[in-house]
This record gives sequence, C-alpha cells and structure tokens, in this order.
Amino acid sequence: MSLLLAMTSWHVEDWRARFQALLPEMPIVVLGEPFDRRAVHYVASWKHPAGSLTGLPNLAAIFSLGAGVDFLFADDKLPAAPIARVVDPDLTARMSEYVVLHCLMYLRQQHRYDRQQAQALWEDDRSQPAAGAIRVGIMGLGELGQDAARKLRVMGFDVAGWSRSPKALDGLPSFSGEDGMKAFLARTDILVSLLPLTPETRGLINSELLSGLARDGRLGGPFLINAGRGGLQVEADILAALDAGTLKGATLDVFETEPLPSDSPLWLHPAVTVTPHNAAMSEPEAIAGLIAAQVRRLEAGEPLQNVVDPARGY
Amino acid sequence: MSLLLAMTSWHVEDWRARFQALLPEMPIVVLGEPFDRRAVHYVASWKHPAGSLTGLPNLAAIFSLGAGVDFLFADDKLPAAPIARVVDPDLTARMSEYVVLHCLMYLRQQHRYDRQQAQALWEDDRSQPAAGAIRVGIMGLGELGQDAARKLRVMGFDVAGWSRSPKALDGLPSFSGEDGMKAFLARTDILVSLLPLTPETRGLINSELLSGLARDGRLGGPFLINAGRGGLQVEADILAALDAGTLKGATLDVFETEPLPSDSPLWLHPAVTVTPHNAAMSEPEAIAGLIAAQVRRLEAGEPLQNVVDPARGY
Repeated sequence: MSLLLAMTSWHVEDWRARFQALLPEMPIVVLGEPFDRRAVHYVASWKHPAGSLTGLPNLAAIFSLGAGVDFLFADDKLPAAPIARVVDPDLTARMSEYVVLHCLMYLRQQHRYDRQQAQALWEDDRSQPAAGAIRVGIMGLGELGQDAARKLRVMGFDVAGWSRSPKALDGLPSFSGEDGMKAFLARTDILVSLLPLTPETRGLINSELLSGLARDGRLGGPFLINAGRGGLQVEADILAALDAGTLKGATLDVFETEPLPSDSPLWLHPAVTVTPHNAAMSEPEAIAGLIAAQVRRLEAGEPLQNVVDPARGY
Repeated sequence: MSLLLAMTSWHVEDWRARFQALLPEMPIVVLGEPFDRRAVHYVASWKHPAGSLTGLPNLAAIFSLGAGVDFLFADDKLPAAPIARVVDPDLTARMSEYVVLHCLMYLRQQHRYDRQQAQALWEDDRSQPAAGAIRVGIMGLGELGQDAARKLRVMGFDVAGWSRSPKALDGLPSFSGEDGMKAFLARTDILVSLLPLTPETRGLINSELLSGLARDGRLGGPFLINAGRGGLQVEADILAALDAGTLKGATLDVFETEPLPSDSPLWLHPAVTVTPHNAAMSEPEAIAGLIAAQVRRLEAGEPLQNVVDPARGY
C-alpha cells in the first residue's frame, strides 16, 4: 500500500521527504509520476487537479493538507473515500493571533497612529473606547471561532458568535441560522469571519449582510475581518460599502482570486488591510505529523479522526 | 474643607465640573485662583508647578490624577501628606491591550505586510514562528505587568518577568534585582517596560541593557516596547542599537521629552513605532470617580488606599 501526494502549487519533493521520514515503511508516490493505482490506500492533497484522483480502487482515506476542504468538494469526480481535515492546535492558535491582532488594531486605531507618525504628528484622542465597549461578532464557531472568542474575551471585548446550527458555548452569547443573523449583525461592531466555504456560505459577505452591521458603535462604524475563505466575500460589495461609509474598514487575508491581482483596488484602498493568506499557517512538519498519525491509526484498526461531513461540506 | 485642583496642561474646568458633580457638598478650588489655603484637605494634581503646593497646613492626602507619581517626587517642596495613586482596572486593561497589540505586531510582522501592501506585493513567509517560540520579558511586575503577563500567556507567548524585589507569581518565571537582570535579558526577544520612573530606573534602558537582550530569537533580533515612562530610556542609545542592528525594532509610547519634538529621528526611523503617550489612558470620569471614592473613604474615617511609598517612589 502507498500514500499518494496530490498537489499543484506546493513543493512536492519537500512533502515527499517529510512523509517518508515519518512513514519509512510506506511507499510515497506523487501525482504525475508513474505509480500503481491499486496500491494507493491514502491520498494527501492540496488543490489536486479535478478528476485526477479517479481509479484508486483501494482508497481508504483522503487527507487535506490544509484546514480547508472546499477544494475537494469542487472536484465532482472525487472518490467516495472518507475525508479528514487537519486539526492542528498550532493552526488554531495562529488564527487567534491574527484575529486578536486585527481587532486590537481597530480598537487602538493603530493605522491612524501609523499615519500620524509618518507626519511626525503627536495627536491624541482622549475618548478612545475600552475593549469592553466594542462588540465583536464571530461567524463560525468551530475550533477556530471558539478559540478566537475565548481570547478576545480575555482581552475584554464584548464577543458573540453566529453559527449555522445552534451551539451552546460556555458564557458566549451565540446566534444561529438565518433567523439569528439579523440580531447578530445588529450588535456587531467588528465582524470576524471564520466560516468554511460551502455552497451555503459562498458570497455570504455581500451588500445585504454588510448593511446589517451596527453603525452606532463607539469606533464609529463597522469593520470586517475575513480570515476564512475568499469565496465567502463579494469584493465589489465590500468596496461599495467602504466607499458608501456603511463599512469603515476591512482586514482581508483571503480573496476571490489568490494571489490578489496587482490591479485589485483593495491593495491601495486606505480603509483596507491586505495580508497574503497567512492568518493561520501550520508548519509543514506539523501537518505531515498529524496526517502520518492518522495513517498509523487506520493501520492499527482505529477510527479516522476529524472526518468531514460531505453533506455539510466541512 | 476643600479639594484643590493643581494641573497645568489639562482643562481644569472640565475637572472641576467632574469633581463637583461627584462631591457636591465640597468646595472645589483651583490653583491660580484665590482660595483659602487652610481649608484645603485634599489635592488632586497632574504636573502642578513645583513649589506650588506649599502652605497647606491641613492637607490630608495628595492624589495623582494619573497612574504615575514621579512628577510629585520631582517637587522638593511637596508637603508631607500621604500620596495615593489611581489604580484603575480600566487603565490596567488598556495597558494590556497596548502590550498585546504590539507584541502581536512583532510576532506577525504587521509592519512588513503593511509595507508590502503599499507595493501591491503578495509575499509570504512560511517559516513564521508561533507565539510560543517568542520570549517576552516584562520589566515591572505590579498591577500592569502582571495583567499584561497573564494576557500574553493566553495568547501563547513564552513570558517571564523582572522586578526590583523578588516576586512569586503563579506560574510566571520571574527574575529580580541586579543579579537577575542578566539572565532575564538573555532570554528576552521582546522586552516590555512597564516600570515606574524612580531615581533607580531613570536611564535604565541604555546601551548596556539593550546589548544584553537575546539575539538568537526566532524573529531575528530583539525588540523593545516601552510603555512605562520616557525617563526610563536613553533615546540616543536606542537609536544607536537600532542602527548597529543589536536592536531590531522599538515601539515607544513615552519619550524623554513629550510631545516628542518634531525633529526627533525617532519619528521617521523605519524600525520605530511611535504612539503619543496613549498606551493606557483612563477616562477622566473614571479617575474622578476613584479619587472621589477615596475622599469619601477618608471622610468616613477609613484608611487611604493605593498609598505610595516615598522611599521606593511608587
């Protein structure tokens, strides 16, 4: 039996070396090279070409090399094997670093002070609100959303969450479903998106959603932080809301097209912060280690962990 | 009896209104106007002119309107009444917001991504360290230092502290005194200064101290965050260390001279972040409320709280 590496944009030889070191007894084969399709029991993929995983009769599991699995469901010829996500505690912590950083940048108006510094301008605002006066709303209450919520609350923010289905989380006010969305948005000064990309969430961050955010906040208007998936957002709508003043700022780590095209107006918009899809990256060694551990678990007859529900898409 | 307001740079009438609303039965008098010196039982000061508080025979307490009291000890004609600091939980939280924000900015290289954005440059570094790989060292383990340490640890940083005298703090590795300083600096990638300004701490952040910081850190060199007092730092030494590469970045909220003079090289140094002494500001209403509560406590025969030790200077 073998493990097939299926990726396009990444350095496959580095990944082969990592997996070979962790699973010395297992042949590691690579898409694009000749290999015995019947021997492939495991696939580790990152954005494999759609249709390239057909004809693997003994496939036992498909592993995504990242936290997202939406690229797998975009392949309508994907074999019917169980799919497992990487759930990396380090990745969760990284995402919370990003979310807390950018919420604090809005709270403390860091970009304003950066601009003032460039002008050697000592100017101050004695009416800065404290974190407790700022309502952060987190869309997506999985591992990532729950950890970010906890840490934002430690920093003093007034946090609530929204998820597709109702969740009872210790002390965290949460809203759910379409019914809960309106009330959730109306109490949100900083909207943090950590949702997975599914047919239901595609394009969710559009004019209608943005127009529902709170406009009476102490920071003077709502802000958006999207560190989920680019497909969640309609960039034309975000730009229109910024220009109309219904959105005061946006911090985007993900985009409809990545890398963000150099002619995108997002790059130079004064109210937009762009980061290159690096909010939460696992160390490749950590990812390989987590997948190798799953392979060993299956080989020992134990159940696969972090299995994706194809009906939900995450 | 009356409360005397003694300040130079602030709007004294706003303060008079605040205190009068909180202490309606007490005359509020103002330095510079005629008032009965024998009636003054309380002084609330922010940087009163040295020598201006003499001849107050019935003074029962002096309140600083800010967290710092160093300006009081700089007045060698200060009356011998007990001095109380403002200990505002909100101010503590504000300081931690600032410290966590700027530690995260270094961790996540935010200024680098801001520069890249200005060039529409999508470029990424897959070897970013996690917070746990970064050693933060906090100088000053009072209310502010302890709260910042706790929150930095929640974010995953590897935190230790240094204080003048030994402190046993739950789970926080701490160093003390001159003997402990060398080992403390040697394990510090980001140095956070929250010390009070005393004769012993003046000029502490100098070439010698900076040269003792860790240079083997995962972020490529040590960083300084001074949110304590400007008198702690020798700005010429900070600039020299930055230019020599022994210090990789500095975030300064306080300065030898404030406002920072417009010709200071700190303003435009590419490795320096300047904020206008606003890391931790209390709302004036909160300060007035805390001082009014102290006055009521004394009037009821209860002891003064948060009394400063003149021998230590804080």
